[in-house]
Amino acid sequence: MKQVFCFALAGLLVAGGGAAMADEGMWTMDHLPVKQMQQRYGFTPSPQWIDLVQHAALRLAEGCSGSFVSANGLVMTNHHCANACLSQLSKGHEDYMSAGYVALKQEDEPKCPDVELNQLESITDVTSQVNAATAGKSGADRIKAEHEIDSTLEKGCVNGDAKTWRCDVITLYNGGSYALYKYRRYQDVRLVFAPEQSIAFFGGDPDNFNFPRYDLDVTFFRAYVDGKPANTPQFFKFDTQGPKAGDMTFVVGNPGSTRRGLTWSQLSALRDYRLIPIYALLSEVRGVLWQYSRGGAQQTKESQELQFGIENAIKVYDGWLQTLNDEQFIQHKQQQDASLRQWMAATPARRAKYGDPWADLARAQQRAKDLQVRFMQLEAGLGFGDQTGQLFSDARTLVRAAAERNKPDADRLPEFRDANLPAVQQQVESDVPFYPQFEENMLAWSLGKLRQALGADDSTVHEVLGKQSPDQLAQHLVGGTKLGDAAVRKQLWDGGEKAIEASNDPMIELARQIDPESRKIRKAYEDEVKAPTDKADEAIAKARFDRDGMSSYPDATFTQRLSYGKVVGWNENGEPVPPFTHFDGLYKRATGADPFKLPDSWIKAQDKLDLSTPMNFVTDNDIIGGNSGSPVIDRQGHAVGLIFDGNIHSLGGDFVYDGSNNRAVAVDTAALVEAVRKVYNLPRLADELTQGHL
Amino acid sequence: MKQVFCFALAGLLVAGGGAAMADEGMWTMDHLPVKQMQQRYGFTPSPQWIDLVQHAALRLAEGCSGSFVSANGLVMTNHHCANACLSQLSKGHEDYMSAGYVALKQEDEPKCPDVELNQLESITDVTSQVNAATAGKSGADRIKAEHEIDSTLEKGCVNGDAKTWRCDVITLYNGGSYALYKYRRYQDVRLVFAPEQSIAFFGGDPDNFNFPRYDLDVTFFRAYVDGKPANTPQFFKFDTQGPKAGDMTFVVGNPGSTRRGLTWSQLSALRDYRLIPIYALLSEVRGVLWQYSRGGAQQTKESQELQFGIENAIKVYDGWLQTLNDEQFIQHKQQQDASLRQWMAATPARRAKYGDPWADLARAQQRAKDLQVRFMQLEAGLGFGDQTGQLFSDARTLVRAAAERNKPDADRLPEFRDANLPAVQQQVESDVPFYPQFEENMLAWSLGKLRQALGADDSTVHEVLGKQSPDQLAQHLVGGTKLGDAAVRKQLWDGGEKAIEASNDPMIELARQIDPESRKIRKAYEDEVKAPTDKADEAIAKARFDRDGMSSYPDATFTQRLSYGKVVGWNENGEPVPPFTHFDGLYKRATGADPFKLPDSWIKAQDKLDLSTPMNFVTDNDIIGGNSGSPVIDRQGHAVGLIFDGNIHSLGGDFVYDGSNNRAVAVDTAALVEAVRKVYNLPRLADELTQGHL
Repeated sequence: MKQVFCFALAGLLVAGGGAAMADEGMWTMDHLPVKQMQQRYGFTPSPQWIDLVQHAALRLAEGCSGSFVSANGLVMTNHHCANACLSQLSKGHEDYMSAGYVALKQEDEPKCPDVELNQLESITDVTSQVNAATAGKSGADRIKAEHEIDSTLEKGCVNGDAKTWRCDVITLYNGGSYALYKYRRYQDVRLVFAPEQSIAFFGGDPDNFNFPRYDLDVTFFRAYVDGKPANTPQFFKFDTQGPKAGDMTFVVGNPGSTRRGLTWSQLSALRDYRLIPIYALLSEVRGVLWQYSRGGAQQTKESQELQFGIENAIKVYDGWLQTLNDEQFIQHKQQQDASLRQWMAATPARRAKYGDPWADLARAQQRAKDLQVRFMQLEAGLGFGDQTGQLFSDARTLVRAAAERNKPDADRLPEFRDANLPAVQQQVESDVPFYPQFEENMLAWSLGKLRQALGADDSTVHEVLGKQSPDQLAQHLVGGTKLGDAAVRKQLWDGGEKAIEASNDPMIELARQIDPESRKIRKAYEDEVKAPTDKADEAIAKARFDRDGMSSYPDATFTQRLSYGKVVGWNENGEPVPPFTHFDGLYKRATGADPFKLPDSWIKAQDKLDLSTPMNFVTDNDIIGGNSGSPVIDRQGHAVGLIFDGNIHSLGGDFVYDGSNNRAVAVDTAALVEAVRKVYNLPRLADELTQGHL
Repeated sequence: MKQVFCFALAGLLVAGGGAAMADEGMWTMDHLPVKQMQQRYGFTPSPQWIDLVQHAALRLAEGCSGSFVSANGLVMTNHHCANACLSQLSKGHEDYMSAGYVALKQEDEPKCPDVELNQLESITDVTSQVNAATAGKSGADRIKAEHEIDSTLEKGCVNGDAKTWRCDVITLYNGGSYALYKYRRYQDVRLVFAPEQSIAFFGGDPDNFNFPRYDLDVTFFRAYVDGKPANTPQFFKFDTQGPKAGDMTFVVGNPGSTRRGLTWSQLSALRDYRLIPIYALLSEVRGVLWQYSRGGAQQTKESQELQFGIENAIKVYDGWLQTLNDEQFIQHKQQQDASLRQWMAATPARRAKYGDPWADLARAQQRAKDLQVRFMQLEAGLGFGDQTGQLFSDARTLVRAAAERNKPDADRLPEFRDANLPAVQQQVESDVPFYPQFEENMLAWSLGKLRQALGADDSTVHEVLGKQSPDQLAQHLVGGTKLGDAAVRKQLWDGGEKAIEASNDPMIELARQIDPESRKIRKAYEDEVKAPTDKADEAIAKARFDRDGMSSYPDATFTQRLSYGKVVGWNENGEPVPPFTHFDGLYKRATGADPFKLPDSWIKAQDKLDLSTPMNFVTDNDIIGGNSGSPVIDRQGHAVGLIFDGNIHSLGGDFVYDGSNNRAVAVDTAALVEAVRKVYNLPRLADELTQGHL
């Protein structure tokens, strides 16, 4: 359930409406539902507990969560969150993604090319500063003011040391408040252990988002500082027994985005004009990759990371569409909207204060509909393989970074502000494997989509393709570019605008050629859709606060959140689903054929293992994509599990939490210790986990 | 715009509501809108005109339209309606689909393995017989009664000579009336001329459903009787000049299905639970085929027919979803429903007469939602490659035909009634090319979908796959089956139930294994969804007749319909689109790269051609998928064009006709004659077209 394609969609994040029920909620650490936790579970977190949780929990900047699990920088996250690192390190070696990786000693821990960890240092409320900056502004003025205040706040926070600190202004409660998140940045992250893909993702796509489940979806990294394992006194001690049914559990992590606060008119537009077309596009990519991987082992290796991400995303979209087509849900949302709208219009004072943001939203959505296809193809880069390959994405980053770095910080596109540059640079310079055949294949497909989406007569399509077919152009671009070489990318980054202007690399030329048109559609989208939407959302959020108070939690924003709940199964079609699976079930489910084929290590270890060891379990914690790799912890602040999935009902959680069947799926820490010791014979790692230090 | 996947979706066909506006309507020949035609165009068809049109127009049983254009059985239809024949005849030869085919003399006209032409002989109203048979019945009883009365009527009509006659009971106006259609059947249909795919489908998928357009989407067949060209005195004379802008035009053909009479609750369920999932599935197949065809020329040849069909279907789905997501359309439908519902409940007498069919419909739809996935995978055969390959489909036909042929006619599944058997037998025995690699590929994909859709733990999935992966099973099935050989299929057909029982062909074994479960889900669907839906639809249709009279036309049912209109362009984004294109535009649009690459014949002929010859044109005739290959005729009953597409706005015509921009796209007869004579140098064919006989 890693975030895939989610950011392309997140768009407008808004506030959860009304008070949270049952074990619902993704709470910020500075605003925990202490009273509810005490009432339901007799538990009140101490300041020390909160401090530990905040600092032991981690964010993986590319879209996952993790945690420190020893005092020496050992990091636990999911195997599927390490896919990119495993693929990248496999360059010229064995395929670590399939075969797994084991560092027997410290010197065997290789550096992941582009993993960045963020440890939350502090949260500062900056609502008044942001409000003052945007007051009375609209359209392009508002966007400019937003950029400027964000830049000022972030620059001040980073204070010249962007290698150590990362700061982001986050919109919470849909513009009801703004907060400055300050993170310690770890960019030297090394690989300690990863199991084989076939046990990490046992059951593959058929079992993904399902339960019962039997996965060891874990990877251990280690954070380094100055070439040595980081000193991390705040970490989650490992509970080697795991939890029991009914135990209270917490999940701390970085849920990517939810849209529980959107109005129904926003949701229906989202469904009809974004989700459905992208759902079809993802399905087509799935077909392309399925067929591509049949070409042989090399092709499988080239395509497997993307294939996994796409299949995952498709299930997510399935779940979303199910909820957005559910009559009961639709009626509930419509009633919520109608009641707030009525309340806002009930007195002249309220009408004066809030205006008619609903009408503004409707206009902005109509405009979004007009601009959508062009925006996705050009600026989101769908038409140039930005979502399915690496080359164009790197070329565009290089072209834009060169231009943006010459501007004052506040005038730049936000992703190129000083605060963000280190992560951008790390990504563009990282020495990732380059598969020309795969890149060419996916680029040819994307260019075909570009022509299809904009039409063969579109002037941009003409400019890009000329008289060439998508195949011919892809061949020309991938055959001629040198961007597959990390050293070339580094040269271009270092050379800045002059190097970019002088380059005759065909992929750089394409990125240069497309950039004016692409920036144009982005600007139109920001000025005519984002700015009025932000403004309208803010007005609606204010009305909600005025009516209901700040009793709820904000929609997820890929920032640290705590959810509380318990280990508990659910009923599926009237049948109870027990909350635990065990090793013996894994061996029963194995068929010998992919994706139910066990790796040799597990076949050999069967006799040594305690087959009654719990393997995976479910809880009713409220989580969402981005929570992958989150630790499950107990009242003592000990790790008892590792989130790696949600059940199929959890997908609707993007829009609404249903405690009756929404379940988080985790690996049991008992299984982790047993496997590390007996399947992989790694006493060094097992001891570090149980003792809390090297 | 050939019907692809449409039948899998057609489901519930119901009556158009209210009086038709402007040039709207697909009228039955026995109920033409004579008054409207006279008022709008000053034209009243004579009995001779109607008789000519009815008999010169043809249906291609597999899903297209056509017409006689000489007294010697010469048939005009689309190239894309001849795809199957062209592929099949290419077995062991040159690829006629790419290269085209030219019969220089009569002996060169090869027989298409499974083209069947239907010439409409008569229409008989059988409403009272059907109503009497189903009166007071519901559920399984109603389904049984429907089957029995249909069988009785069709048997009586065919009267023992199923080789010559074909009879179908058709539900019109959604159960408002029933009619018996009697056709003369032509099964000896031979290929006379087909141009190259690159000119027939110039512009490919990018231009499909668009205009301006430059396609020569034509194929000429010839009907034979007793080994000689058929004697067909009723034919459309060829107008070598084509029409002028503003001219009145008629299209006679077989629109496949429309759903203009469905209620909004039916349409929204259709959208959410059928169209969206199938749209995604089609997209995935498109991806698979795109990648497969990159394997080389052989792979392209193997996959191109399906690829074309899928791309076409995806555009259709795009158009459908656009209309079904259109707020104005939704409100219009909801208001229509509310007003009829109110009218039906306004008096005790009406309440007693109609009951509450709306509640019955809602229940049936809920049940459909529950059964949908299983029905599509097993009975519609998606899970066994029924829509993407040939082997399982043939195996199931053989297994079922053997069982059904032993039953009394009225007890059989309708497709195996005596009246339908000749077409079924022709199809299963036809000597089509067999591409084992392609079949295995698509079957492996389908079996993966089966497992995904029903879940790895489903008992049917277990039974089918056992411990094998979809790949392994597909290899076993395709590697072991002999069904690729037409002679083997013929043996099994002739051998009947004994031969089927004795067979150890793995594909036959699979079809046998799956059959009980598959019939079970079909029966559940028919008894619990179809029967109550038929009944409720009938009640709603009756209420509509009672309120509005029989002033409109029935939804399309792949039976003969006439639409009237005129040659006229439209406005796209405020710009006028002229109604004609010409040869000179074709040469300007050619880029040299696929799909804008001209065949050599056209490059060579450029100097000889009159470049001002009109090539394609648009009219506002109301057409839909299934109308492909329909002739465009004028007031004199002369052919002036050949329908081969609609513009993108015509796709919404499935649900509503919008005369402002819904356009039919046709090849001009002037272009056909010019091309046959000067590009292909076929004076024999050109003379037959201009003189009306050999």
